[in-house]
Amino acid sequence: MDLIDELKKRSTLVDESIQEFLPIDHPEELYRATRYLPDAGGKRLRPAVLMLSAEAVGGDSDSVLPAAVALELIHNFTLIHDDIMDRDDIRRGMPALHVKWGTAGAILAGDTLYSRAFEIISKMDADPQKLLKCVALLSRTCTEICEGQWLDVDFEKRDIVDVDEYLEMIENKTSVLYGAAAKVGAILGGASDEVADAMYEFGRLTGISFQIHDDVIDLVTPEEILGKSRGSDLREGKKTLIALHALNNGVELECFGKADATQDEIDSAVAKLEESGTLAYVREMADNYLEDGKNKLNLLEDSPAKDTLVEIADYMVSREY
Amino acid sequence: MDLIDELKKRSTLVDESIQEFLPIDHPEELYRATRYLPDAGGKRLRPAVLMLSAEAVGGDSDSVLPAAVALELIHNFTLIHDDIMDRDDIRRGMPALHVKWGTAGAILAGDTLYSRAFEIISKMDADPQKLLKCVALLSRTCTEICEGQWLDVDFEKRDIVDVDEYLEMIENKTSVLYGAAAKVGAILGGASDEVADAMYEFGRLTGISFQIHDDVIDLVTPEEILGKSRGSDLREGKKTLIALHALNNGVELECFGKADATQDEIDSAVAKLEESGTLAYVREMADNYLEDGKNKLNLLEDSPAKDTLVEIADYMVSREY
Repeated sequence: MDLIDELKKRSTLVDESIQEFLPIDHPEELYRATRYLPDAGGKRLRPAVLMLSAEAVGGDSDSVLPAAVALELIHNFTLIHDDIMDRDDIRRGMPALHVKWGTAGAILAGDTLYSRAFEIISKMDADPQKLLKCVALLSRTCTEICEGQWLDVDFEKRDIVDVDEYLEMIENKTSVLYGAAAKVGAILGGASDEVADAMYEFGRLTGISFQIHDDVIDLVTPEEILGKSRGSDLREGKKTLIALHALNNGVELECFGKADATQDEIDSAVAKLEESGTLAYVREMADNYLEDGKNKLNLLEDSPAKDTLVEIADYMVSREY
Repeated sequence: MDLIDELKKRSTLVDESIQEFLPIDHPEELYRATRYLPDAGGKRLRPAVLMLSAEAVGGDSDSVLPAAVALELIHNFTLIHDDIMDRDDIRRGMPALHVKWGTAGAILAGDTLYSRAFEIISKMDADPQKLLKCVALLSRTCTEICEGQWLDVDFEKRDIVDVDEYLEMIENKTSVLYGAAAKVGAILGGASDEVADAMYEFGRLTGISFQIHDDVIDLVTPEEILGKSRGSDLREGKKTLIALHALNNGVELECFGKADATQDEIDSAVAKLEESGTLAYVREMADNYLEDGKNKLNLLEDSPAKDTLVEIADYMVSREY
């Protein structure tokens, strides 16, 4: 079975379970708002990492499904609140929640997903001690995501941001949730503390790699695949790792923060970034995090689930969109 | 020791523990925002109910202190997000968080308090099974608070709201957190399921009574005690139980929703509400919830803590501000 099929098999289960664990209760309009993003589908990479991690340590994938749903709901909660904060009005090609339900509705839908996620986890049929470990990890992870988002909002107001600060930001904002996905799966799958910690590092490091690669995609992926205009990060003056490395190394990007930059101007900036070595630097950094992350799996015995985790990691950093 | 001293003794412990469990970490400005409301003090009624409930079932008050702090943080999180949604710019006589840190900052500070609360609970030194019960209860409670706030926001847009709908709203928005406070204290204090459930009902019912009484205070308490202009709920056209009962019973309140109503107009509305029996109806309802709530404590053996819980309940519904 190839990777897409493996992912599809699990995302179908997650889709069904979302309907079960997040029913349209009273007040219906609130619950419709909470289901808006989860129902829009997606690859469900985080739930897949959680389920495969459970399998890879010898556990059962089906029994961790509620935790996989909880993780996906936490992810969706962060997207909803981030979109309010970043004033992003489009998400997955649809109007963002705060466009459809207003700021108050979007804040509440996010808060509801947040608490539902912890409800679902805490009511799972599993060893209380393990579940409590998962609650502690997930709540810590949510705090870190808030810290990361705070830094991200703060960076937009600042002129200079160091690469280290940027890496700290994406680590908190994005990669810790992949770490938590892998570790929750490992804990519930019955892994030792040592293995569970290694799984966390696998998720965290490949998550950083994934986020760095995301910035490259925006620049080099053809528009027909990207689904939006190429170079939008540059036009918005977004402080990505690419932009920071260029700015900090004297590579002048005329189109940076220029909302009406032409495609020719973007192309010439990309050429400059290739020539100056910025893109090579960023690609190498993404590759290094990827390799370090995959190496963490050496602690595991070989299994189809382990192979699929490696494939997911590779896919995350080779995908074009 | 009188009630104020009993409360003070416990609020001092809670104040100290907030500093311990919510230190000013990196990013400092985020954590300063999270500490802004908790540091403004307050009577800490909810933490007191939690600690006293633990004592009243034979448990130890000090060991449940982290849970008391978590509950207070959840309460503060709801205040911060509510103020954004309700566009209330003043809280406890100070600028609201979203005035000081912007909407993005206030959303994030609230989200951080939310996850910190679950971090604190899940890392407590107590029986995992009990802690997991507390996490399940608190996450369910947070979902209900979101449901209640959703209804509250929705009511402001509607012409007609039934008394039953109003009661459902305040039950979810306010009283379930008192219920959770009492039950978490009882669970961690070692109560049986039956006693813990009764404690929940004590908190829930007296919480409803408290919220109903809150609306009376706005009308009848002298301004110098209230600290704001009397009758502000009427001027704002707020759908309180008083307003709903009057509207649904043909009592015409000329000053309802009239932002510039004079004090004379407010006084004449209050007189009408007295004559028509609306205030008597609302006071009786508050009294009935209070009595029902206090009766739930009959299951407990007599103790100083039980007496203090009764005093708190009476205080909540006799206080003038």
